[in-house]
Amino acid sequence: MKRTLGTCYYPEHWPRDVWPEDARRMVDVGLTWVRIGEFAWSKIEPDPGKFAWDWLDDAITVLGDAGLKIVLGTPTATPPRWMLAVHPDMLAVDADGRSRKFGSRRHYCFSHVGYRGECARIVEALAKRYGANPHVAAWQTDNEYGCHETAISYSAAATVAFRSWLRARYSGVGNDGDIAALNAAWGNVFWSMDYGDFEEIELPNLTVTEPNPSHQLAFRRFCSDQVVAFNRVQVDIIRTHSNAPITHNYMGKVTNFDHFDVGADLDFASWDSYPLGFLEDRAGADQDLRERYIRQGHPDFQAFHHDLYRAVGRGRWWVMEQQPGPVNWAPYNPAPLPGMIRLWTWEAFAHGAEAVCYFRWRQVPFAQEQMHAGMLRPDSSEAAAMAEARAVARELRAAPDVSNVQAPVAIIYDYDASYSWDIQPQGRDLSYFSLVFDAYKAMRALGLSIDILPATARDFAGYGVVLVPGMSHVPDDLKSALIASDAKVLMGPRAASRSREMQIPVPLPPDIPGLDVTVLGVESLRPGQAVKLASGGKIHKYIEDLETGGDILELTTDGAAVLVDGAGVSYIGGWPDQRAYQRIIETMCDATGVRTRRLPEGVRVRETGAETFWFNYNANAIEINGLELDPVSVRRVIGRS
Amino acid sequence: MKRTLGTCYYPEHWPRDVWPEDARRMVDVGLTWVRIGEFAWSKIEPDPGKFAWDWLDDAITVLGDAGLKIVLGTPTATPPRWMLAVHPDMLAVDADGRSRKFGSRRHYCFSHVGYRGECARIVEALAKRYGANPHVAAWQTDNEYGCHETAISYSAAATVAFRSWLRARYSGVGNDGDIAALNAAWGNVFWSMDYGDFEEIELPNLTVTEPNPSHQLAFRRFCSDQVVAFNRVQVDIIRTHSNAPITHNYMGKVTNFDHFDVGADLDFASWDSYPLGFLEDRAGADQDLRERYIRQGHPDFQAFHHDLYRAVGRGRWWVMEQQPGPVNWAPYNPAPLPGMIRLWTWEAFAHGAEAVCYFRWRQVPFAQEQMHAGMLRPDSSEAAAMAEARAVARELRAAPDVSNVQAPVAIIYDYDASYSWDIQPQGRDLSYFSLVFDAYKAMRALGLSIDILPATARDFAGYGVVLVPGMSHVPDDLKSALIASDAKVLMGPRAASRSREMQIPVPLPPDIPGLDVTVLGVESLRPGQAVKLASGGKIHKYIEDLETGGDILELTTDGAAVLVDGAGVSYIGGWPDQRAYQRIIETMCDATGVRTRRLPEGVRVRETGAETFWFNYNANAIEINGLELDPVSVRRVIGRS
Amino acid sequence: MKRTLGTCYYPEHWPRDVWPEDARRMVDVGLTWVRIGEFAWSKIEPDPGKFAWDWLDDAITVLGDAGLKIVLGTPTATPPRWMLAVHPDMLAVDADGRSRKFGSRRHYCFSHVGYRGECARIVEALAKRYGANPHVAAWQTDNEYGCHETAISYSAAATVAFRSWLRARYSGVGNDGDIAALNAAWGNVFWSMDYGDFEEIELPNLTVTEPNPSHQLAFRRFCSDQVVAFNRVQVDIIRTHSNAPITHNYMGKVTNFDHFDVGADLDFASWDSYPLGFLEDRAGADQDLRERYIRQGHPDFQAFHHDLYRAVGRGRWWVMEQQPGPVNWAPYNPAPLPGMIRLWTWEAFAHGAEAVCYFRWRQVPFAQEQMHAGMLRPDSSEAAAMAEARAVARELRAAPDVSNVQAPVAIIYDYDASYSWDIQPQGRDLSYFSLVFDAYKAMRALGLSIDILPATARDFAGYGVVLVPGMSHVPDDLKSALIASDAKVLMGPRAASRSREMQIPVPLPPDIPGLDVTVLGVESLRPGQAVKLASGGKIHKYIEDLETGGDILELTTDGAAVLVDGAGVSYIGGWPDQRAYQRIIETMCDATGVRTRRLPEGVRVRETGAETFWFNYNANAIEINGLELDPVSVRRVIGRS
Repeated sequence: MKRTLGTCYYPEHWPRDVWPEDARRMVDVGLTWVRIGEFAWSKIEPDPGKFAWDWLDDAITVLGDAGLKIVLGTPTATPPRWMLAVHPDMLAVDADGRSRKFGSRRHYCFSHVGYRGECARIVEALAKRYGANPHVAAWQTDNEYGCHETAISYSAAATVAFRSWLRARYSGVGNDGDIAALNAAWGNVFWSMDYGDFEEIELPNLTVTEPNPSHQLAFRRFCSDQVVAFNRVQVDIIRTHSNAPITHNYMGKVTNFDHFDVGADLDFASWDSYPLGFLEDRAGADQDLRERYIRQGHPDFQAFHHDLYRAVGRGRWWVMEQQPGPVNWAPYNPAPLPGMIRLWTWEAFAHGAEAVCYFRWRQVPFAQEQMHAGMLRPDSSEAAAMAEARAVARELRAAPDVSNVQAPVAIIYDYDASYSWDIQPQGRDLSYFSLVFDAYKAMRALGLSIDILPATARDFAGYGVVLVPGMSHVPDDLKSALIASDAKVLMGPRAASRSREMQIPVPLPPDIPGLDVTVLGVESLRPGQAVKLASGGKIHKYIEDLETGGDILELTTDGAAVLVDGAGVSYIGGWPDQRAYQRIIETMCDATGVRTRRLPEGVRVRETGAETFWFNYNANAIEINGLELDPVSVRRVIGRS
Repeated sequence: MKRTLGTCYYPEHWPRDVWPEDARRMVDVGLTWVRIGEFAWSKIEPDPGKFAWDWLDDAITVLGDAGLKIVLGTPTATPPRWMLAVHPDMLAVDADGRSRKFGSRRHYCFSHVGYRGECARIVEALAKRYGANPHVAAWQTDNEYGCHETAISYSAAATVAFRSWLRARYSGVGNDGDIAALNAAWGNVFWSMDYGDFEEIELPNLTVTEPNPSHQLAFRRFCSDQVVAFNRVQVDIIRTHSNAPITHNYMGKVTNFDHFDVGADLDFASWDSYPLGFLEDRAGADQDLRERYIRQGHPDFQAFHHDLYRAVGRGRWWVMEQQPGPVNWAPYNPAPLPGMIRLWTWEAFAHGAEAVCYFRWRQVPFAQEQMHAGMLRPDSSEAAAMAEARAVARELRAAPDVSNVQAPVAIIYDYDASYSWDIQPQGRDLSYFSLVFDAYKAMRALGLSIDILPATARDFAGYGVVLVPGMSHVPDDLKSALIASDAKVLMGPRAASRSREMQIPVPLPPDIPGLDVTVLGVESLRPGQAVKLASGGKIHKYIEDLETGGDILELTTDGAAVLVDGAGVSYIGGWPDQRAYQRIIETMCDATGVRTRRLPEGVRVRETGAETFWFNYNANAIEINGLELDPVSVRRVIGRS
Repeated sequence: MKRTLGTCYYPEHWPRDVWPEDARRMVDVGLTWVRIGEFAWSKIEPDPGKFAWDWLDDAITVLGDAGLKIVLGTPTATPPRWMLAVHPDMLAVDADGRSRKFGSRRHYCFSHVGYRGECARIVEALAKRYGANPHVAAWQTDNEYGCHETAISYSAAATVAFRSWLRARYSGVGNDGDIAALNAAWGNVFWSMDYGDFEEIELPNLTVTEPNPSHQLAFRRFCSDQVVAFNRVQVDIIRTHSNAPITHNYMGKVTNFDHFDVGADLDFASWDSYPLGFLEDRAGADQDLRERYIRQGHPDFQAFHHDLYRAVGRGRWWVMEQQPGPVNWAPYNPAPLPGMIRLWTWEAFAHGAEAVCYFRWRQVPFAQEQMHAGMLRPDSSEAAAMAEARAVARELRAAPDVSNVQAPVAIIYDYDASYSWDIQPQGRDLSYFSLVFDAYKAMRALGLSIDILPATARDFAGYGVVLVPGMSHVPDDLKSALIASDAKVLMGPRAASRSREMQIPVPLPPDIPGLDVTVLGVESLRPGQAVKLASGGKIHKYIEDLETGGDILELTTDGAAVLVDGAGVSYIGGWPDQRAYQRIIETMCDATGVRTRRLPEGVRVRETGAETFWFNYNANAIEINGLELDPVSVRRVIGRS
């Protein structure tokens, strides 16, 4: 499959007479794809049941006839105002119990049955009309599920649905709910929280002190399942009417639903990549890194998500929205350095993307995103991204097709574990994402290409090293599969620390057959209270008290065991800093013949099998491996380098 | 007109037998004015419709007979508890949707029709009774509109009024609302936010992510108009019954309504000046400045407001409340250095005040402000302010009358632009007020006397330099007037960046006829990410990417244009630091023959035509221009110096 | 009375067959007490009115037969879910007006009459059944009143009760409320806040700006009285059926109700001591101290509470819950250094505790506290605390009985003053607790044993020095008693600054007969704005302007009086730093023959009459007084040392 480019376009925002010229320019710059429609419900159905197809028919024709392939979005992230007259209770309710209001987007509650019906209706209408349209080459469901924390709603609809979900999960005879089973699973005897009936169970907000972690975890799983179910309604309808592949555009570092579960229903995954916004807003970067990469973005954050969505899409994925200039939503909104648009685009391809679409074609002069750059300025003049997109399009002509090979190392990334850490961080600012990202960064610093695996992975053939950081609940068959694999496996900290219902298991964690290590206790550590390792580096943030008769690979300077080996599995009882993490992973790679190479600051490498890509995130030139890397640049080498 | 002093007095707080002695002491210390009545509704009308005039008649007589002139306040900032039985829905509602409760002050919603009627009723009663009273020499409406963020209410009453306001603004045939016009003006097509009817429009709070900026701006303008309308009801009634001038006492750095619009209905403006509270609470001072001036207040903050209210009052203005000692409401509440009461008082006169009234006469031993100093302590002994007030009164006897001449330079200050920046700061902590205040501080540091002008100013005759920083929307006739004027004009950053409806205009900003400069893009910058200018100083916080064929006056060290000249107007594409701002303004002044002089730290100068005032905010003595300035002192020189 | 140990146990959490072995191990380790039942309502009364006594009968028999004495808790902190069907309005309401939900604990409003009735019912049932049980040797009412800020509720029930409380307090003829008396007492004339009827008074939340301080203080007193009344219902019932002593387990640094008032109804006091959690969460320690004592806890925080609860229990007190390892609720949760469990335990005994109970016996693998360490791990293996408890039990066999002698110095600690400071701190982060704790720390640094006295103390015989820091209202008879005592008394800052109704008194404070000092004004100071004293040290945070003809003992370097003596009473007009506080107290001790000794960092001493205890909180060994103190250790010396 060819690597392709695209853009996001809103014909409804612009006069009809601009469309043909826009389409022509898109083709001219070398774009293949144009995504449309995903916020246009009020234009498609201005009044309940009265559809206005003409403009959309026209737009699809104009764009398609110009030679563009269309990704058609379902408009369910922006239900029109008139829908509230029909479903006044469809609004999401926040943790403070406040119903959110109309006037932005994503104001619906995933659990509202009436709204789900409306979505089925509009999707059916769209799919019927355009399912066989030759220009419509892909579908996108909704937009950025979970963005603005919208996967979690405390509405009455959610309460009803949660009870029903619980009944099914804790079911007795006749598949009806068994409240005693729930009470036992949650340990409700603690603090007299036993329920007599499922109808008594509320959503876990506004309690006096924290709610039962098992209650919270059930709610988080329920919320995720509601997103999955919501999405599946749309997918099922589209499939009935269209053979075009279906995707959803995930948003970076959204952890409030299971992306793999939604992904299982998609044909390919896609995500929205805003490197500068993410650096300021969600990459967890320290002050130094923020200042160094303020116009480049975090050198690992996009790569992590690329690898994640390659997994979510079972190998097939896109960047559906690529930042083309300053955005409007981060605490500070600088412009990318010249060259970054090209670098980001190639980075996506280096990780296996099939397409990269720039968001958006033309900066819109009105409404919420008027300060969000586009490929064109509001006056249709070319913004900075245009020339870089054109350059990439030119380079793509001579480049190999999409190529993906299995990486030599892998990390398991488990949304369920993330919920668990959210609920019980045990220390300020500790999060599952940060731990996994630290492991990922350490691997990247060693020059490794990395696969991300879902919690459901059981086949690890071909991997030299598999990391399982912080996975709160590790099912027995996953333990067995890891032990049985040929890979060196690093589990911990906090891996297998909880049962499926978020109880501490007995025997105590991690309880890995063949590995003699037991976590006797845990501590969270203040900044500055790190524990030194005998071989260099530190354990910070989180440390465990290990009892072991196993093979101790790492010790603190006080002689406490930190890393223990046995049965082909290592367990680490703490959160290593980068120095320690890199050394530990490097040693594992050495043992399994996985090549590592320590990269200079700001340099990254990624191998696809067919090519090796070198990225220089620094604003200065770097020489490495005999290659001269220009400032802020990508160097593509055919084969390994 | 003589410069005069006064105080704020609450006869209802003290036994009747204290009044005559209080009045005698006020006269003795040299006070002319006494403001009363503005919180006394429950004493004037203890039960609905039952008035208790005796005490107020008596108080006015006692004070007036002692030789004092009375400013009579309408008590509408503190509706009594019984009013809630009649109008339970009159309470303000905050952005979280919570109705505020009785028990402090300003608990009313400006949009509540019933409450507005009650206000008309009590003002009518007061005006009828005292409109012709010879002791009542001025009126004050309400108290500190907008204080405690009360200009903005999300009540049901506000919703109804907002819809009505929108209908009038976006009117179709028959002056009825045209919802399509509103949808177009706001760009509601974005995110399917179109409305089918004005009745569907809610206030812009509690949306999932930010509401449409145009929606927000309309709401902010509506809120301001509601304050204006509320005030006008009172003014119109008072004018029917009294010839005494009418004022309102504005509060420092309240930006939630248009003070000029309210001021248009007043005979003179007044404001409440709390320099130490402001330094801690709202002057935006950095840590160093806070520590240096902890007992003096910000050396420019009061001056700015003096100049602002001189403009709001069209030349006539007072300080209605002057801090006399520690207040109770700032994060830290120190006492002024000895001499500061006198300095602050003279500073007001230096900027053209007709009167300065100390708040309050006697520290009240009960309720919310018991820790707020007065001229007397609760036991009637003299607090520190008394001697300084007496000294000023003595000095006033020999001083010239109020004198005001046009300043050589001016800044346009636009409340509408402030709303616009609030809605769309684009960078953390960026505010319109800070930008304007930075420009003002730079001018003050150059020894300039400054006029502040409203956004409606079109005549700039007599000014050498006019600054238009950050004015989001610049109407075409203002652009023309600025170009046509003889003044050197400095516009930007962000000037003319939006249409009246808060859309990005095409052609792109600033679109100033005769000035070849276009803003291609903008960036907000983290602290520490400032851009150096070739001539010294920096652009920080906000920078624009300028395309120009014009005359470039300032460049970054990287050669990017920052300040461009043409058609007598300069445009600056960034937020300058003090060093750059001072140099730029100095150059403009030099070019137009406006005298500047760089002042030492903590020294300020102000010319009134008749006199030159030198202020030393430092705790140490300073010699300047051959003048010896004592620590914390004012030196008045007749004529220019 | 012997010093004893105990633990907290939840038989309802564990299989029946584990109980006997648990009991055996408790006895084996040397425990005397086991507390049970306090969260078990849903197990005792699974359905309304249907009691399940068997398991509890059984548990009491098993534990008692094993030789343990039982503290039986009333389960009223955790009303079961079914109760909400009966009393849906019993839930606490927070300051934002949000009703809290079921799902954790302490969700009841103290003012709800129906819930109080339910509590009476369950306590009656328990007391009847077990009042004469020979194993039940003590009772505990509820659990940690006021924890999670639950003493303060803004519910409808609280509103009704508050009005009734006010009627009684401001009573006219026929003991009915006199609203004019309330208006006068509160100064409601200010801002027209007068009420016409008690029914008009709301709770003081959600006002636009701060409510009347007198209104707030009345509410805080009411809230405290509601806790007292709630507790008294239980105490009265238990006393009818049982001769066993009654306690309540207070939580550290809970200041939202008067612990002395509740204590007056108890037979002994007890408190829950979590030194590491407190260090991070509530001891107000600076960064250095936090880092130094991260695994030891604040060296004075527990001691302060020990002395406090000795006073609350009128000499008799326990630690009901002693931290045995990491907890789950602080921002960071490290493990204690080896030896700290022993140190903490002995520290309690050194301050006169009768018993120390470890919380909890076995770490529970489920629900909210699964990360809270116990004496056993979830798998029943011994956690770190076990060996230390065993060591203490061994040491106790040879140790003297509980011994308490009057300390040579005392501090008055007044919950009412704490409310007053909460309401009117006058400076950011100023609190009554911090001031008192600073005084306490200064005394501890001088090697003093200290008594804490309630505000009702009038007999000071035997004390050399009495401190009265920050006591907002000092009744006349307390002033007289202090003047009349032989002790050197240090009052201030802010002592006697308010009337009982929170007004500023005239004559001005402190108005101490025989002491010529008047507070003319006060200031709060930014960090870094401290005022130096001529004799060394500083006044920081809060300083008063003193007028005095008395004997000046301390001056600022600028010559202002800070400490003034007269009539055997000294008044200090500011908040001293540790250096100044220690010098001042030392001087007072010298004058009255109280022995002081300046202790090295981290070393503390406590004398009980029979013994002298030396504590070394440092992680390194210290030599003092010829004693070698091991790292993190206690040294017990018979007699004085």
